[in-house]
Amino acid sequence: MIQNNILDLLLETFPDKIDTQCYALEQHSKDESAHLPQTPLAVFYASSTQDVSQIATYCHHHKIPMSVFGAGTSVEGQSIPAKGSLCIDVSHMNNIIAVHADDQDCQVQAGLTRLELNNQLAKHGLFFPVDPGANASIGGMCATRASGTNAVKYGTMKHNVLGLTAVTAAGSIIHTGGRARKSAAGYDLTSLLIGSEGTLAIITEVTLKLQGLPENTAVAFVQFDALEPLIQLVISTLQMGVPIARIELLDEQGIRAVNQYSRLQVPEKHTLFLEFHGTDNAIMEQTQIVESAANDLGGTQFEWATHQEDKNRLWQARHNVLYAAKALIPNSVVWTTDVCVPIASLAACILDTHKDLQDTKLLSPIVGHVGDGNFHLLMVLPKDDPKIQEKAYHLNERLVQRALDYGGTSTGEHGIGKGKKHWLKAEHGDAVTLMKTIKSALDPLNLLGRGNIF
Amino acid sequence: MIQNNILDLLLETFPDKIDTQCYALEQHSKDESAHLPQTPLAVFYASSTQDVSQIATYCHHHKIPMSVFGAGTSVEGQSIPAKGSLCIDVSHMNNIIAVHADDQDCQVQAGLTRLELNNQLAKHGLFFPVDPGANASIGGMCATRASGTNAVKYGTMKHNVLGLTAVTAAGSIIHTGGRARKSAAGYDLTSLLIGSEGTLAIITEVTLKLQGLPENTAVAFVQFDALEPLIQLVISTLQMGVPIARIELLDEQGIRAVNQYSRLQVPEKHTLFLEFHGTDNAIMEQTQIVESAANDLGGTQFEWATHQEDKNRLWQARHNVLYAAKALIPNSVVWTTDVCVPIASLAACILDTHKDLQDTKLLSPIVGHVGDGNFHLLMVLPKDDPKIQEKAYHLNERLVQRALDYGGTSTGEHGIGKGKKHWLKAEHGDAVTLMKTIKSALDPLNLLGRGNIF
Repeated sequence: MIQNNILDLLLETFPDKIDTQCYALEQHSKDESAHLPQTPLAVFYASSTQDVSQIATYCHHHKIPMSVFGAGTSVEGQSIPAKGSLCIDVSHMNNIIAVHADDQDCQVQAGLTRLELNNQLAKHGLFFPVDPGANASIGGMCATRASGTNAVKYGTMKHNVLGLTAVTAAGSIIHTGGRARKSAAGYDLTSLLIGSEGTLAIITEVTLKLQGLPENTAVAFVQFDALEPLIQLVISTLQMGVPIARIELLDEQGIRAVNQYSRLQVPEKHTLFLEFHGTDNAIMEQTQIVESAANDLGGTQFEWATHQEDKNRLWQARHNVLYAAKALIPNSVVWTTDVCVPIASLAACILDTHKDLQDTKLLSPIVGHVGDGNFHLLMVLPKDDPKIQEKAYHLNERLVQRALDYGGTSTGEHGIGKGKKHWLKAEHGDAVTLMKTIKSALDPLNLLGRGNIF
Repeated sequence: MIQNNILDLLLETFPDKIDTQCYALEQHSKDESAHLPQTPLAVFYASSTQDVSQIATYCHHHKIPMSVFGAGTSVEGQSIPAKGSLCIDVSHMNNIIAVHADDQDCQVQAGLTRLELNNQLAKHGLFFPVDPGANASIGGMCATRASGTNAVKYGTMKHNVLGLTAVTAAGSIIHTGGRARKSAAGYDLTSLLIGSEGTLAIITEVTLKLQGLPENTAVAFVQFDALEPLIQLVISTLQMGVPIARIELLDEQGIRAVNQYSRLQVPEKHTLFLEFHGTDNAIMEQTQIVESAANDLGGTQFEWATHQEDKNRLWQARHNVLYAAKALIPNSVVWTTDVCVPIASLAACILDTHKDLQDTKLLSPIVGHVGDGNFHLLMVLPKDDPKIQEKAYHLNERLVQRALDYGGTSTGEHGIGKGKKHWLKAEHGDAVTLMKTIKSALDPLNLLGRGNIF
């Protein structure tokens, strides 16, 4: 068998780096999505950019497709290998290469996770703001153009990466961008690779823009009986130029789930979680503006988390909503959807979706990075119930169509991956031809990230 | 002659849109750089995306190279046509297509200038923050990845464009990005086209992210005898997280020029111009932090511009520095250079450059968007003195090499254009191969922006 020949050759060429044991194959067959797992041909553990270059050169020569595995936290199947792919695991590439505190930047290997990065940065008085919830790898966050809870203030990966080291389909090492805060020198290959989901090059090192740790942080929540005034508060907050750090929606159903799971006793209403960063004075002024707008719109009194442990508990509850949702139905899976619309259409889009959920009787908390117009359904589906899963599929299709109808996008932060390929053309029309032209030009053998995006 | 045949055909096919008069050819032969002018074959005045699509289809069929002209304010020769090119003038495409005040975005035609845009946005309480000084067209600002004085707070074009309509080399109309604040759907073609200097597609419409007009604005300046403490103040300001809107350097020589030209009596020292945006309280707090840091570093007292006309006069003086420099030597040209380095290296890079200026006895104010590590020399060169011009050429070469040695870029905001093509490889190494692959894939006949970047 050809496959066995390739395997033998791989083992012979890279005896210390290749793993073909069942456990390793199984571990690298899936991500955090509900997409079908697929075991790779083998797993290659890379320790350096040079390693990745070497294996890519080898794979290119032997026409072996390549997938990349960091923390395995992707949610649209991006790290699931195509059949016959070699999985390049970069999780051992988890070092900080350099921190330039005065320049507020750092260079890291792609496999470093964001929590570990922030642990290490704290001693410099710095942090990396992009927070997708999961403890993703920095390389994976680049590949999927991740964002999360505080993109409203600090931007997404697109805004926080200064440069990349990457390995091309043929194994060449390239460096994009640099350490200058801005540059007009040539094509913005950094942005092209960010969000390319492993299909154009393998990201091995990342130069990140950092932020100074805020002098203080305040966390609060406010509740509404209806969604419209809640979204109006978000719009007003943004229009008044309040530099809010996080503004997150958890709907009534989400609060119910979180209450049960995290043993909280938050009243079960649509809830905005808010976080403010800055000096004491700046925070006081910002919160007064938002609190007064919230009162005018009929929100409840702000509830403040003043102690650090209360703040952590509140955000932990928010971050745990996935597990909380899963606990609503025993033996269930959670399908996390992801759309993003212009913010003035957010209330309408969520309300339409809410109605759709009621009509279909699907159980699903709604959570949203509402400052960006981005929200997710966490559809809780009993395992082994194909009928309900089909219902969920069709609801998701309607949700994406609705987001596009409102001038939005099929995915705000999860990516196209395996699950939204059929929406790419609907969203981008003839621009998809350009994307394909670029893909074919940079990876003519279609070896990289096969099965993602296209 | 072939050229005459093409011209006749063009005139026959587009009788109302083609101009071949000397005056029009001459007007479209140059930009604001010192690069040699080149007249186009003819000028095509486009009124719509469809017009551009039609002419591009025509040019593609007849293999006629195309250049684009907006406001003609580029400073590295980007709008200078390659020999035999048809110049597509988009300056008549100057309409605002839509303003979505609640979403804080708008859609405009590429030929609209930024001052006209901001005039129109004011009634919505909104503004577009990117300010390169010149009254550039929005399409040109996209094409060159422009930034300017307040990028330190609001980012560059890369951060403020949500989507584009563009016409490909073969005449197809594509739409990139969208109106959602963020998206992870497919390749970031918007960022690829931004900064591509007309070489990948012709930008015809732009969707922009807008900002609410700040409640208040405060403008001040502070002076230093030496550059190091001035730059240290910039670094401290950024590290303390002060959301400063503008922080601009004008060196001693620059102040001298501005004093003479704008009839100011500012003491002739290295000067930081500062602008703060926000509520009165926020501004007061921010200025106290920066003022106290400035005092600690031996700066002069802050001088405040409290009246709007004083603010305008101060910024006008800063914006007029190009003309002020030119006035230092009668019958001169000004060569504006542009490099950007990581901020901790900015003082050293400027000091080395200062010494180089003294050694070569070239007259040149230094201005800088120092919050980004970006600075310019405004080398004042007597016309018709090739010896001094050669000196300036070599000084610029040393400046770029120095910026790269300090981990910076050959151009922070002016682009590669015609003047820095030989630096692209030094800065980006093998990544240039990828750029060329993309160029060849999207424009195999090399019709678009010929002579820019490569």
